[in-house]
Amino acid sequence: QSTVQLSGIADAAARSVSNQGRGSVKSLVSGSNNTSRLVVRGTEDLGGGLSASFWLEHGIALDTGTSTAAGFWDRRSTLSLSGKSLGEVRMGRDYVPTYLNWVRFDPFSHVGVAGSNNSVSATPLGPIRSAFGSNANTTVRANDTLQYHLPGGLGGIDGQVMLGAGEGAGNKVIGARLGYVAGPLSLSAARVQTENANTSTGKFIDTAIGGTWNLGFLRANAVWRQFKQNQSKQTNLMLSGTVPVSTGEVKFSMIRVDLDGRVGTTSIDPNGSTHLGLGYVHTLSKRSALYGTCSRISNRGAATYQVPGGPAGLAGGGRSTGYELGMRHNF
Amino acid sequence: QSTVQLSGIADAAARSVSNQGRGSVKSLVSGSNNTSRLVVRGTEDLGGGLSASFWLEHGIALDTGTSTAAGFWDRRSTLSLSGKSLGEVRMGRDYVPTYLNWVRFDPFSHVGVAGSNNSVSATPLGPIRSAFGSNANTTVRANDTLQYHLPGGLGGIDGQVMLGAGEGAGNKVIGARLGYVAGPLSLSAARVQTENANTSTGKFIDTAIGGTWNLGFLRANAVWRQFKQNQSKQTNLMLSGTVPVSTGEVKFSMIRVDLDGRVGTTSIDPNGSTHLGLGYVHTLSKRSALYGTCSRISNRGAATYQVPGGPAGLAGGGRSTGYELGMRHNF
Amino acid sequence: QSTVQLSGIADAAARSVSNQGRGSVKSLVSGSNNTSRLVVRGTEDLGGGLSASFWLEHGIALDTGTSTAAGFWDRRSTLSLSGKSLGEVRMGRDYVPTYLNWVRFDPFSHVGVAGSNNSVSATPLGPIRSAFGSNANTTVRANDTLQYHLPGGLGGIDGQVMLGAGEGAGNKVIGARLGYVAGPLSLSAARVQTENANTSTGKFIDTAIGGTWNLGFLRANAVWRQFKQNQSKQTNLMLSGTVPVSTGEVKFSMIRVDLDGRVGTTSIDPNGSTHLGLGYVHTLSKRSALYGTCSRISNRGAATYQVPGGPAGLAGGGRSTGYELGMRHNF
Repeated sequence: QSTVQLSGIADAAARSVSNQGRGSVKSLVSGSNNTSRLVVRGTEDLGGGLSASFWLEHGIALDTGTSTAAGFWDRRSTLSLSGKSLGEVRMGRDYVPTYLNWVRFDPFSHVGVAGSNNSVSATPLGPIRSAFGSNANTTVRANDTLQYHLPGGLGGIDGQVMLGAGEGAGNKVIGARLGYVAGPLSLSAARVQTENANTSTGKFIDTAIGGTWNLGFLRANAVWRQFKQNQSKQTNLMLSGTVPVSTGEVKFSMIRVDLDGRVGTTSIDPNGSTHLGLGYVHTLSKRSALYGTCSRISNRGAATYQVPGGPAGLAGGGRSTGYELGMRHNF
Repeated sequence: QSTVQLSGIADAAARSVSNQGRGSVKSLVSGSNNTSRLVVRGTEDLGGGLSASFWLEHGIALDTGTSTAAGFWDRRSTLSLSGKSLGEVRMGRDYVPTYLNWVRFDPFSHVGVAGSNNSVSATPLGPIRSAFGSNANTTVRANDTLQYHLPGGLGGIDGQVMLGAGEGAGNKVIGARLGYVAGPLSLSAARVQTENANTSTGKFIDTAIGGTWNLGFLRANAVWRQFKQNQSKQTNLMLSGTVPVSTGEVKFSMIRVDLDGRVGTTSIDPNGSTHLGLGYVHTLSKRSALYGTCSRISNRGAATYQVPGGPAGLAGGGRSTGYELGMRHNF
Repeated sequence: QSTVQLSGIADAAARSVSNQGRGSVKSLVSGSNNTSRLVVRGTEDLGGGLSASFWLEHGIALDTGTSTAAGFWDRRSTLSLSGKSLGEVRMGRDYVPTYLNWVRFDPFSHVGVAGSNNSVSATPLGPIRSAFGSNANTTVRANDTLQYHLPGGLGGIDGQVMLGAGEGAGNKVIGARLGYVAGPLSLSAARVQTENANTSTGKFIDTAIGGTWNLGFLRANAVWRQFKQNQSKQTNLMLSGTVPVSTGEVKFSMIRVDLDGRVGTTSIDPNGSTHLGLGYVHTLSKRSALYGTCSRISNRGAATYQVPGGPAGLAGGGRSTGYELGMRHNF
């Protein structure tokens, strides 16, 4: 079966994280530059510009030899029918448009001590917890989706729409993304709304708008993302950049998180945080690299955003810092 | 390791199922034409007509990125030693002979809205539940088996025997299948008996007898399968066919399910159902196809056989209908 | 991605185990000559003698189509940077040095009815249970490790050190191995100490010293391994050998297990066992073999070491015997 490709990423790092007033923890972690994974995929040319393709992606916790999620192919499992000038119809589990419109502006790819995952997923009381409780949320991926992606060659425009079947009990998702590239500039916007058993007081609305200006010596990004549900809001603003150097690249990001409104009778207004990240990736080959990253999260109010892997018990408003040294290998 | 083959199937569909008096549910599902799967297998020529081979098969729920079963290689995990004129000795987890002698006559391959799985596995009170409770049953596969398969070239005769070690606590299985092919006609019969901790009142007996008449413009099948345990019986009769058309094939099936006798003091005599299925598969290539299928299940008595994916709470004797549009890609 | 290798082992056997006074159980088992597994690995030449490599290894219970451990890549998941003359830095989940320094002297590769696993892992009250309770122990592998392995070409010397990050709650591991090969003789010693929440009364200390004398007609091994924690000790001594014959090899082992001291107020002094194993491996090809193995474990005191797969309820001091016939296929 010559058309099946087996590929992936193995990424591991030594990390140290300190949480204010709680000491520090040293750890060996997986996927700090890019999530460790195994990918099985393939494409079949059907003739006439049509093709069939599939993509199965499994996340690996290389440090412990486990799967990163309960679902083995949690990262992506899709089947597509594509036409060169018709675009692509895609079915299965996949990234939501807003996540794609956020992570493309994060030089840390959402992961590691400085990844923007630290300010999105690990939320305190706010719209995400209010809409999803402890169930799977739709800020990164959604199940049971049907998508349409625009074809290439539309004069710099790209885009997609996604429908996720709620199937009675799950997350019913409607989302879209539209982007435009003009020379060194690119701009894009996305919106996803989710309904489930928790959202009778209002759908969960996720909006992301961002752009990149590629100056050659610096690739600069700005992106704004807001989660809303009923009377609560979380607004994340990220300014970031990548600077190519002869041996690799330097990258940095600054994220400001603000919570607004209230959940039930609890005001979340004073809560928020500021994240700073700085990293250097040293190229060993096209496929392999060494990297070092450091990060600091300063919380406000009752917020407890943290660099992952630190000691438990950070107090609201506390500070969390971390650094790591690692290696990434694409195979 | 050039002898390892990585292959599989990616299959997804959009489905709608209505249950009488309960409304309908729309869903995105996996494996409606053929179960989505990943297969790792290989064969080594040992010389002198002997070969060693293995087969590992993993079921994928493409819609949610999960495994279809708790066991990762649940679909099949076997090791074989084969001789061209000696036949094959096979060890591991595999299909039972009666299942093989049923599914070969089901043009819907046991899956999807019209698959015969809907009338076998999802049983109400009857011999299956009586013999297995909520534990894994042996109507499809069995663990810990040792098999012998007849070699080819026996003048149209093929067959197999299976022994499954109960290992003290599990399902102890003894089964066999014998088939005969003569030109356009094929006939085959299989029987499997299972003993476990629940069957002190009588072994679970599974018998399947069927045949195919290939008329060229129509491949017609008839198959009868009966499950028995103590004083309860379930009899399934399926008439089905496949009609090749220029762009693919049309297929249909009719299944009648009858429950007889009693479980404990509960009479199951009045219970049963009739299933109708109709489908069209549109060929895109040797490996890829689009398909559409519709199905109706009409229950009698207290039976609640259902098209999978519908709303909960179908009343005994109620009707369940469904249709789906999807795509299958072999890789 | 031409650099990814997919390989593995499929191994299955029919087994019978008798436990004194409890009857016997027949079973179909996986991995009695060598654990059934799937391996994904690869190496990239980075130039200048440097290379990047990864290794993912999944254990398969071929008899039931399941994973052998909760962690899918439990057997090994590592990422390495190696230099021809610099040695190898390795990160991830891997074997501990003492296990490597024990299993290399076990002709039954730690598995099957005669494998030394039966005298190490399945321990009654002793230092292993005292230090780890029912949590994962570090007698075979450890999570979150950073290793350094000596390069080749050091005049017969090889060795490694391992650090395992406890990460606050897990097993903090420090270990090393040093070996020396001189012609037909090889000698090596290893030590691993583990700290966790249970070891406040004393670290768990694991020491293994062994050697091989290759006489041509016989490869003879002797190895001593001791587990210690607080006031309890388990000492395992194995004498073993492999005799090449024209059609394969004959192998045997004798293991004596002695428990000493006490756990809490319970004396474990009288407990121990003697294991005898004898096997023959019949070569079918470089990659495939048939095998037969028999084994007897005689317990002393309250010890209940057992050949795996027998009936439950062996009394302290009882005898357990087993034999198996199987096939192994490397792919």
